[in-house]
Amino acid sequence: MSENYDPAPADDHVPARGFPPAEFEARLSRAQTAMAAAGLDGLLLTTEAEFRYFTGFLSRFWLSPTRPWFLLVPASGNPVAVVPSIGRACLQATWLDDVRCWESPQPQDEGVSALADALRELFGPNARIGMPEGPETHLRMPLGDYRRLQAQLPGIAFADATGVIKSLRMIKSPAEVEKIARACTIVSDVFEALPEMLVAGMSEIEIFRRFKIACLERGIDDVDYLVGGAGPGGYTDIISPPSPRPVRAGDILMLDTGAVFDGYFCDFDRNFAFGHVPEHAGKAYRVLLDAAEAGLQAARPDATCAELHRAMQGVIDAEFAGGSGVGRMGHGLGMQLTEWPSITPDDHTVLQPGMVLTLEPSLDLAAGRMMVHEENLVVTADGAKLLTRPAPQSMPVIPA
Amino acid sequence: MSENYDPAPADDHVPARGFPPAEFEARLSRAQTAMAAAGLDGLLLTTEAEFRYFTGFLSRFWLSPTRPWFLLVPASGNPVAVVPSIGRACLQATWLDDVRCWESPQPQDEGVSALADALRELFGPNARIGMPEGPETHLRMPLGDYRRLQAQLPGIAFADATGVIKSLRMIKSPAEVEKIARACTIVSDVFEALPEMLVAGMSEIEIFRRFKIACLERGIDDVDYLVGGAGPGGYTDIISPPSPRPVRAGDILMLDTGAVFDGYFCDFDRNFAFGHVPEHAGKAYRVLLDAAEAGLQAARPDATCAELHRAMQGVIDAEFAGGSGVGRMGHGLGMQLTEWPSITPDDHTVLQPGMVLTLEPSLDLAAGRMMVHEENLVVTADGAKLLTRPAPQSMPVIPA
Repeated sequence: MSENYDPAPADDHVPARGFPPAEFEARLSRAQTAMAAAGLDGLLLTTEAEFRYFTGFLSRFWLSPTRPWFLLVPASGNPVAVVPSIGRACLQATWLDDVRCWESPQPQDEGVSALADALRELFGPNARIGMPEGPETHLRMPLGDYRRLQAQLPGIAFADATGVIKSLRMIKSPAEVEKIARACTIVSDVFEALPEMLVAGMSEIEIFRRFKIACLERGIDDVDYLVGGAGPGGYTDIISPPSPRPVRAGDILMLDTGAVFDGYFCDFDRNFAFGHVPEHAGKAYRVLLDAAEAGLQAARPDATCAELHRAMQGVIDAEFAGGSGVGRMGHGLGMQLTEWPSITPDDHTVLQPGMVLTLEPSLDLAAGRMMVHEENLVVTADGAKLLTRPAPQSMPVIPA
Repeated sequence: MSENYDPAPADDHVPARGFPPAEFEARLSRAQTAMAAAGLDGLLLTTEAEFRYFTGFLSRFWLSPTRPWFLLVPASGNPVAVVPSIGRACLQATWLDDVRCWESPQPQDEGVSALADALRELFGPNARIGMPEGPETHLRMPLGDYRRLQAQLPGIAFADATGVIKSLRMIKSPAEVEKIARACTIVSDVFEALPEMLVAGMSEIEIFRRFKIACLERGIDDVDYLVGGAGPGGYTDIISPPSPRPVRAGDILMLDTGAVFDGYFCDFDRNFAFGHVPEHAGKAYRVLLDAAEAGLQAARPDATCAELHRAMQGVIDAEFAGGSGVGRMGHGLGMQLTEWPSITPDDHTVLQPGMVLTLEPSLDLAAGRMMVHEENLVVTADGAKLLTRPAPQSMPVIPA
């Protein structure tokens, strides 16, 4: 059992922390079915989300790049962790029964021999091992060490397992959805309270700080992602840190946050006007709300991401010409701020119950000024259910 | 100029945000000297810290794994960024004069062709391009895309450039040290105030929350890293998230934080006793403070990391047998929570002025109970200067 699993939280509205062993057994079973279909003898996983998906090991320690962490998922039987010595106690407290360690840091052989030994023992000299090598993945170990691993295991063929991992992680369990929903609810509360927390003349830096504190006070664990900005009639980009510039009457402020509850993200934004809503921005706001509503209605099982995109883009095109540079109108989310799939014209992923998505229509207001609106939903058998409290029908105004 | 560079902050104690162009020109010049010595025609960089080091581009957007970001640093001339379309405006606002974009997301060709074109144009068909492939590095692009890139560029030899990058990033400029020092000062204030903020009966989750809020209120941008725990007479590991367990009389609480100011981390911890200091823990605390002091005295230019380790371990060995499982007694820090070098018996890195290090002696108190103490310093020509306010000489007690 995950050491942080708490089946009886203090408050009925707060989901349990961690997951019961049955959750991991179900994930493993689905993985092994997919691995059999893909002809894989096992998986080798190195990244935080994949490692946590199968073990429940939640730690901020992944921020330190010094030590790799490895998980082997065999075609039958339980996963085996091969981890640096500092992780021994934590991994032994998870549901895993086989945890192997090497003394670390040891840059001359940072887990490579330990991992090679485990691979040989579990899979024999010849095997086909899947690793995520496709879109939105990376290898979290030094490239030189990966080459050394391959050289030690001439009979092991490494194959791309992105499809296997993606098919699992795109579909969230009810317990996963609860955690995302909790983050969405808390941040919805904060966005609703925000107009009373802000006044014109505050810098973006100060506004960001107050927003983060308000999220923490209400039960968010970490505000890992907060971007946005303010500017006259609109903002210039949506990925910048806050500036020291004071917000003024006539500005539009956007905050877009990925806040975390028990390792799961929400990801949505809200727009605010200071003093008054400029006419053009007010119209854009309504169009973006209509676009998101069209996306929500279209987000039924068996619809595709491309169809969602078309539904939203159609609403925007009727009122605003041109694109926005964002490149998509939403994406999956869960253990990561953004996950597969992408809501683009070319992504033909078919929606299934349990998928959690953002709807994120955007448009260019004028040269260098844009507006983005974002909501989060879960796909159910009956259609989409919003996890965020819907944005107000007209842009909230902060006195200035 | 970095768009967030603010040469005139409101308060004399708060360093300017961002860096002036001269900082990046100096970094580039040092890089090109090191590249010439290593026989490299250029560098290909994909990771956040390296990208930011040469461009100044600071963004939380790196949390999204969808899009890679590429930087090419030629042996002469300015760096060239090859970035997804969403980053165009941000990169054009940096000191770079050559920013190339591809429309993204586009998983079928997520920047691979754009990057290959730029490599060919800048370096010709045959060149030797350095990438970080060694300890503590990784490649932030899909492995499959890296293979496709190599296949498109048969005349380009990719070579390990970890040594080049490490030699640059280990030595901090005065402006970098100022930012780390600012984070250290704010968090020192928070640790000092903490005994008045906590009472027995609070859960670890609540304690972590209050700590993060206090950091934000005093001017920290993000508390990206906070680990620790509490337990009777000591804690069991140092990388776990907080538990719902209430802290009780007789517990030792440790908080270890990597808090960020303008993209630069501090990384240190403090220990607290609830109700009273158990005798064994009190002794361990004094030994760890003595060990850190021995490390501080040893941290002079031309000393090695191994010598620092020996100085600290010697103090501990005289009083406590056995190791701790942590594996090292400190490390570099800066744009990342942990950076090269490591304070281990095998790391013979020679200290130089401008290096910022943690001193992190640890010991096992009893089976499964440990204690860690950590301070941060900068190496100067005259010896080490502490960036953290030293921990109290005896463990602070919180009434219980």
